Amino acid sequence: MENICAEALKVLKERRSVRRYQKKGVPESVTLDIVDCARFAPTARNVQPWKFAVLTDAAERKKIAGIAEYGKFIADAPVCIAVFCEDTKYYLEDGCAATTYILLAAKAYGLGTCWVAGDKKPYAEEIRTLMKMPAGWKLVSLISMGYPEETPSPRKKTLDEVLRKL
Amino acid sequence: MENICAEALKVLKERRSVRRYQKKGVPESVTLDIVDCARFAPTARNVQPWKFAVLTDAAERKKIAGIAEYGKFIADAPVCIAVFCEDTKYYLEDGCAATTYILLAAKAYGLGTCWVAGDKKPYAEEIRTLMKMPAGWKLVSLISMGYPEETPSPRKKTLDEVLRKL
Repeated sequence: MENICAEALKVLKERRSVRRYQKKGVPESVTLDIVDCARFAPTARNVQPWKFAVLTDAAERKKIAGIAEYGKFIADAPVCIAVFCEDTKYYLEDGCAATTYILLAAKAYGLGTCWVAGDKKPYAEEIRTLMKMPAGWKLVSLISMGYPEETPSPRKKTLDEVLRKL
Repeated sequence: MENICAEALKVLKERRSVRRYQKKGVPESVTLDIVDCARFAPTARNVQPWKFAVLTDAAERKKIAGIAEYGKFIADAPVCIAVFCEDTKYYLEDGCAATTYILLAAKAYGLGTCWVAGDKKPYAEEIRTLMKMPAGWKLVSLISMGYPEETPSPRKKTLDEVLRKL
């Protein structure tokens, strides 16, 4: 079959969550291109209800890491991207699609990421305020990003286990 | 910079929702490899709370299309994939990540898709029953899939519009 993008399938199958990063920073142009990819994530009725905040300042990242219980490594990742959405009916679906685009675009650039939960977390409002987002906006996710210092391989279910036979 | 997967970035930036499909069927091996990609989507605590149901039978697809108000085109798409999740705290995040993986894997294979909402829809339970999923499982999404018969280009916000300056 022609026109199959095998490299894209490889990115999908090989991306894993990374929580340990090299000290090396990420060029700003790379971070911006990754956020640029997220613009194209699908949204219900094409409303694109999102804003992406990029955080590189070490003191700011340390503050976020201190608030997000399962995101301590944000302090050591050179970049943190926060995904915020307006409170639409499908904001969580939309914000999660954009988050997934960011994780995959980062992988395409050889970067490691970890998705830290935002929605439903008691700290969501505190982070919204800290990042000066207007009231009413929802924190969907925090993404730590940097060049990977580890190669985790958590167990994934087999195709047979996840396919629903009808 | 080396090792950038430009083709994967292209897949991310060029995928759009497609609602009109060619009559041509999708090889089963392709559909299965697309679902295989979804296995690798990230999940909170790696729980992978999902099942993927693949529907190709025309009568079944027509039935689903009749139930899903914004998914009438499911009747004419050769394949419909339903994403179900167990009712975990982050089932919607996890299911949306897997849905996004399916859309992108399909694009890598030259296929068009449209994400039809499942969660929060009054018809979610009816479709769960129809697809014989056990009680308690949540319908996250329905994905129509086939070779594209249209090339839509909805307006996307600019990077400047979606980037939150701190």
